Amino acid sequence: MINAVGREIPEEILKQTGKQPFMGVHHFDGYEYKKDGPVTKCVINSEGSKLVESIHDVLVKCGIKDGMTLGFHHHFREGDYVVNMVMEEIHKMGIKDITICASSLGKAHDKLVDMIEDGTIVGIQSSGVRGKIGQAISEGKLKGLAIMRSHGGRVRAIESGEVRIDIAFIGAPTCDDYGNCRGIGGKSDCGVLSYSMVDADYADKVVAITDCLVPFPNFPAHISMTKVDYVVVVDEIGNPDKIATGAAKPTSDMRKLMMADYCTQFVVNTPYFKDGFSYQTGVGGASIASTISLAKIMKERNIRMRFGVGGLTKPMCDLLENGQVDALLDTQDFDLNAVESVINPRHFRISAGEYADPFNKGAVVNKLDFVILAALEVDVKFNCNVVVGSDGVITGAQGGHPDTAAGAKCTIVISPLLQGRIPAICTDVTTVTTPGESVDVVITDYGIAINPLRQDLIEAMKDVDLPFKTIEELRDIAYSIVGEPERVQFEDKIVGIIESRDGTVMDVVRQIKKFEFSGE
Amino acid sequence: MINAVGREIPEEILKQTGKQPFMGVHHFDGYEYKKDGPVTKCVINSEGSKLVESIHDVLVKCGIKDGMTLGFHHHFREGDYVVNMVMEEIHKMGIKDITICASSLGKAHDKLVDMIEDGTIVGIQSSGVRGKIGQAISEGKLKGLAIMRSHGGRVRAIESGEVRIDIAFIGAPTCDDYGNCRGIGGKSDCGVLSYSMVDADYADKVVAITDCLVPFPNFPAHISMTKVDYVVVVDEIGNPDKIATGAAKPTSDMRKLMMADYCTQFVVNTPYFKDGFSYQTGVGGASIASTISLAKIMKERNIRMRFGVGGLTKPMCDLLENGQVDALLDTQDFDLNAVESVINPRHFRISAGEYADPFNKGAVVNKLDFVILAALEVDVKFNCNVVVGSDGVITGAQGGHPDTAAGAKCTIVISPLLQGRIPAICTDVTTVTTPGESVDVVITDYGIAINPLRQDLIEAMKDVDLPFKTIEELRDIAYSIVGEPERVQFEDKIVGIIESRDGTVMDVVRQIKKFEFSGE
Repeated sequence: MINAVGREIPEEILKQTGKQPFMGVHHFDGYEYKKDGPVTKCVINSEGSKLVESIHDVLVKCGIKDGMTLGFHHHFREGDYVVNMVMEEIHKMGIKDITICASSLGKAHDKLVDMIEDGTIVGIQSSGVRGKIGQAISEGKLKGLAIMRSHGGRVRAIESGEVRIDIAFIGAPTCDDYGNCRGIGGKSDCGVLSYSMVDADYADKVVAITDCLVPFPNFPAHISMTKVDYVVVVDEIGNPDKIATGAAKPTSDMRKLMMADYCTQFVVNTPYFKDGFSYQTGVGGASIASTISLAKIMKERNIRMRFGVGGLTKPMCDLLENGQVDALLDTQDFDLNAVESVINPRHFRISAGEYADPFNKGAVVNKLDFVILAALEVDVKFNCNVVVGSDGVITGAQGGHPDTAAGAKCTIVISPLLQGRIPAICTDVTTVTTPGESVDVVITDYGIAINPLRQDLIEAMKDVDLPFKTIEELRDIAYSIVGEPERVQFEDKIVGIIESRDGTVMDVVRQIKKFEFSGE
Repeated sequence: MINAVGREIPEEILKQTGKQPFMGVHHFDGYEYKKDGPVTKCVINSEGSKLVESIHDVLVKCGIKDGMTLGFHHHFREGDYVVNMVMEEIHKMGIKDITICASSLGKAHDKLVDMIEDGTIVGIQSSGVRGKIGQAISEGKLKGLAIMRSHGGRVRAIESGEVRIDIAFIGAPTCDDYGNCRGIGGKSDCGVLSYSMVDADYADKVVAITDCLVPFPNFPAHISMTKVDYVVVVDEIGNPDKIATGAAKPTSDMRKLMMADYCTQFVVNTPYFKDGFSYQTGVGGASIASTISLAKIMKERNIRMRFGVGGLTKPMCDLLENGQVDALLDTQDFDLNAVESVINPRHFRISAGEYADPFNKGAVVNKLDFVILAALEVDVKFNCNVVVGSDGVITGAQGGHPDTAAGAKCTIVISPLLQGRIPAICTDVTTVTTPGESVDVVITDYGIAINPLRQDLIEAMKDVDLPFKTIEELRDIAYSIVGEPERVQFEDKIVGIIESRDGTVMDVVRQIKKFEFSGE
């Protein structure tokens, strides 16, 4: 069946997953459903401690068994120790057929590939997978189907009961003996615990793993004791120095700085750029640079931001320090400056649900004026791909990309026209993760294209001195430089799906194939 | 059937309510159940406002109809305008058979009696009812059964799905146009919104009613926009000056000051009185006085309190100001000093569930060392009555009484031996609300009785110079002064039940009868 972004979703996949094909960004607006609830074991005694001696013991107490689904969060990013710690013990215990439902997985978890190969892990549900796990999935090594969900989509999947998490593990920088967790303090400070909040709300068993036990009550709790069954103290839950690894780096790349400047010029010429506007940016070099240049113009014109959202980095936190934004709403800290900013009373933690969930009564993304995003590929229908590399291998993550794009009044995607010898602007993206109807503007180093759906923005820019082009023109420039690439070749086997934030199927991901030259 | 506190619970009531008789305080410890979830209408658009013009319009939007159950909270206490405002509109619309599920109801709601009489309201579920509603229920005017629940028990009833709230109304001192509510700020400041949090979590429709609309985002939100369907702005939601009416007053009554002194002497001689202890006290004059005298001894002996819980009043907030307690955990503010203290960063808001719910993974009450409570009556099995007056009329509320009594390591009930000409210490309480197994000590102006179940406390007090007596001795003194009272006479009709915090039936309340002299 062809879905609303023109992708063929095989009937077998719809049948296997019980899902519908993607029907458009607003299809489920106003849809009513009954939320799920966890199985809860009541504590009606005054014994006063939930401490358990070891990961092994807590797994036994939680009734770990073959086929369970386990929840994890990724606030430690490349510095996470919790997933491996738990999975190694499970592996040792000989448990099989585990599904991991994580807010994201990365290179820190490369060693899980062995457990994928030996059948300990048969399912992966994640925002995406960087590193060797992505490669393994793309090579068809995972027994089940990988499901890639956005941050908002993961909350939806759990609260709708589509996914039931048997045991959730929360890496808690500080925790008391009754399970009150905080993302700040201790020796493994990650700032916030936003992605794990839905796990705590809906998992049948919730285990807090900490390396810093503090006296009760560890308040204000980011995860409440009322949702935590057990607490385990270990030596180290993560390496906070590695939080900034990978995604979050400032740039000195002239091409990125140019795109950042285009972006800022575009933003300030829209009708949304006025006192009290709201803004989110990703962690790409150009996105970060555009925040810095935007701050200058805000200062010049005496325009304040009402709130900034993220995935936060230093430039956003600087806005707060400098009094240029009233409030930061934080789901994840991409660098240690952001972690340190959390103590600012106007730097607020929000849950992944508050941030981006399409299946609640209104998330923060719906209130965004601007979001600045990156993409691996953008096609001429403005569809974006942020998960599968142009070589066909799973290599990125949805994150909040489709969530913020759907919510923001002005969604800007920054991408260099060419990623090495690969055109980033193309006729068809390898895999659709964010539908073109959510993407308003694409900024490249060769020009800027506005989505024809947004005639209002085209009108607003008619006297603005920026290198506007059609998206087809940008594609043609790319193809004229590096040639039109051969399409990546895949096996028939479907190894994963890109789930839309509303739970429908946006696209499928197939097993990679060794490239065969078409002339052969 | 006779329940665990010796009360006869008629089969008809068990059948009608689907409930079990009370089986002991810890019967459900370790019990597993699946939590309920609300029907949720998804908001996947960027329209950005949930404002609705009037109470009438919002009722229409929520699909108000005969037979619905509505949720309300009581943080404005005697100054609440919200319940009447909503119910008057419902009455005007001709809607019938409404059940009100409120965290509490009081004299502010006297005018609901007319709606009870005309069938607009057929069910009342509340912590208790002071004022004319209690009288009306006791006179048999309510069509359905009144259910009196503790604060923790109400959370349990809602999250277990036993009660489904169709529409919850949240009086919000401040709110933004997307539904983020806070209990502080604005012109009707009540400090916290703890009791309404479960309504927001589980009601199908949630309406925020505010008299102070503020810019988005109203953070940190006490109730999140993700749970709120609509926002209505009205002139006034309450009169904060009346928060302190009724329950919370300091005392100069010598008898109460003497009991407060006994209480303090008892507390400081228990093994729990040491650095880092935890403490809660009610709002009775003696309870408040005992907090003040305890503070002096804490200072003398250099003992700090780790946390205080409540229902908070000025003396508890003074402990925080004076650095004698590390943290206050707040569910309700009984006076304006407590409301003002909420901005202290160590004065934390907790939900009613975090406070007292027996059906989650561990509430704050489980961590209490001491709770100081009052009672209308205490019997020789240490059972307490805090709901039904000795004249048989419903006049009080369970509040957190059975919750804290069950959780605290040392539960102290202060009560003058005689309430006017009525013995407060008696052979059988009129109605059991808190089971004697939870009550460790009873302090009266004629002496102190320790529950024989607590041989450890009897041992700890053996050299302490306080007027210890058995509970029977106290009863006998009372009877020797005023005579043994005739038992209150009731009709057969059961008008309400006292629900135990775990959902079983603690006792029934029957319709009052005009007293007939036994000699006639």
